[in-house]
Amino acid sequence: MIEHEYTFRVMYSETDQMGTVHHSNYPKYYETARWELFRSIGLSYQSIEEMGYMLPVVDMKFKFLKTTQYDAILKVRTRLKAIKGPRIWFTYEIYNEKNELINSAETGLAFVKKSNWKPCIIPEFVSAQIEKHNVQKIINA
Amino acid sequence: MIEHEYTFRVMYSETDQMGTVHHSNYPKYYETARWELFRSIGLSYQSIEEMGYMLPVVDMKFKFLKTTQYDAILKVRTRLKAIKGPRIWFTYEIYNEKNELINSAETGLAFVKKSNWKPCIIPEFVSAQIEKHNVQKIINA
Amino acid sequence: MIEHEYTFRVMYSETDQMGTVHHSNYPKYYETARWELFRSIGLSYQSIEEMGYMLPVVDMKFKFLKTTQYDAILKVRTRLKAIKGPRIWFTYEIYNEKNELINSAETGLAFVKKSNWKPCIIPEFVSAQIEKHNVQKIINA
Amino acid sequence: MIEHEYTFRVMYSETDQMGTVHHSNYPKYYETARWELFRSIGLSYQSIEEMGYMLPVVDMKFKFLKTTQYDAILKVRTRLKAIKGPRIWFTYEIYNEKNELINSAETGLAFVKKSNWKPCIIPEFVSAQIEKHNVQKIINA
Repeated sequence: MIEHEYTFRVMYSETDQMGTVHHSNYPKYYETARWELFRSIGLSYQSIEEMGYMLPVVDMKFKFLKTTQYDAILKVRTRLKAIKGPRIWFTYEIYNEKNELINSAETGLAFVKKSNWKPCIIPEFVSAQIEKHNVQKIINA
Repeated sequence: MIEHEYTFRVMYSETDQMGTVHHSNYPKYYETARWELFRSIGLSYQSIEEMGYMLPVVDMKFKFLKTTQYDAILKVRTRLKAIKGPRIWFTYEIYNEKNELINSAETGLAFVKKSNWKPCIIPEFVSAQIEKHNVQKIINA
Repeated sequence: MIEHEYTFRVMYSETDQMGTVHHSNYPKYYETARWELFRSIGLSYQSIEEMGYMLPVVDMKFKFLKTTQYDAILKVRTRLKAIKGPRIWFTYEIYNEKNELINSAETGLAFVKKSNWKPCIIPEFVSAQIEKHNVQKIINA
Repeated sequence: MIEHEYTFRVMYSETDQMGTVHHSNYPKYYETARWELFRSIGLSYQSIEEMGYMLPVVDMKFKFLKTTQYDAILKVRTRLKAIKGPRIWFTYEIYNEKNELINSAETGLAFVKKSNWKPCIIPEFVSAQIEKHNVQKIINA
């Protein structure tokens, strides 16, 4: 299994009038976190698009466990959970500075061809890089 | 069951470099849609906060079925699905101009006191307004 | 001079922890307002991109005069101020429900070719549509 | 003069269908940059709000010189330009990885009391911290 940790600070523009982080920011945090996981194994999402593929989100779910606030330093623990055909799943947990779990999530994405948005099997150059990092077991898990 | 339809146009700032709507916008669309449902039965979310309550999102899930784009006119069909204790659930479907379902979602929210973020039973003035609209069956469903 | 009025309601996600609208939303409001002005004279911004052109913002300035809040209904008064070479300028004013001016702004944009981002003279099909609406005087003003 | 450099990476959600960064993100970048400048002299914006003050933006202007893109690492050079009465001005420049200037901006903010949004002179604990960093000359410049 591939795991990665990504740390960031909450921006003021991400707050809402409840004085917490607006829930629409979590998909953005997780998106950044999963491409940082990719970067950590030698893949950049930008280069995937440059190779003619895109990875739109197909499903996503979130649990909000604790509230957080402006200027908090949050840590995302991301796991590449499974790959099957064109699909790839990531799970995520966000921890606050006291190491309390504040949010957990799962997102499913699908490889599509940039030219026509048709789903396609995970490209060779992506799966090779994933396998190299000793995670054969997640493929077609 | 209370249902409501809310129609809006996709803004340019909501697009991303895939040329579609970035997935982080859907929580925003659904938030607006559920408070428009509330408005349609005589409740404004702003007045709920003014009465000392807030309704943070506790869980949310989304399925992305079809892509859409800038300037599309989209229709959200929102349903108040259930209420139990401090919790309230809404389901949503977004349709494009060809009446194709492009996204479906469910969100759970919890009534909390504004002063201390403690969960509390749905306030009387909210439940009364919901019951008035002939939807007793959803309460404690 | 071409003028247009566009009315919208402030979304919850646009608020920040000051309890007002975060200032980064104003460029989005004005963007929507100027393309609604274009729509009112028979031009859609989407069709401009489909014809091979884009209109990135080159400069923008804003004055914040009064604060506003969630759920407010705001009215943008947009004016096509001038066109010169590849450049086009719009001015804007936002009014609240009491008809008080809360924000004013000006944005300059430039026509560029989508293929190479090179600035180019305003396309014929755009200038023709603008002239038809009796605004010759703004061209090369 | 107080100067500060803040570096960040462009997120995917900040792109638009032009394939560049949507212009509404620049106010967010600059906001984060100016509070990082404050942090560098021992002031946190969050603590300013906790002390009963807020710093809404009063005017802002931006020049877009070069386009940028997803995943770029950008550097903001921020300067505290002047303070006068309740007002404080910052100037900013963003540089790309080739050290090319891609955007410049200026924002004016005003100290207001959190309780009533009334403008007020810069609080003692803020001006003391600024003076300590050898920038008396900017005060009432």
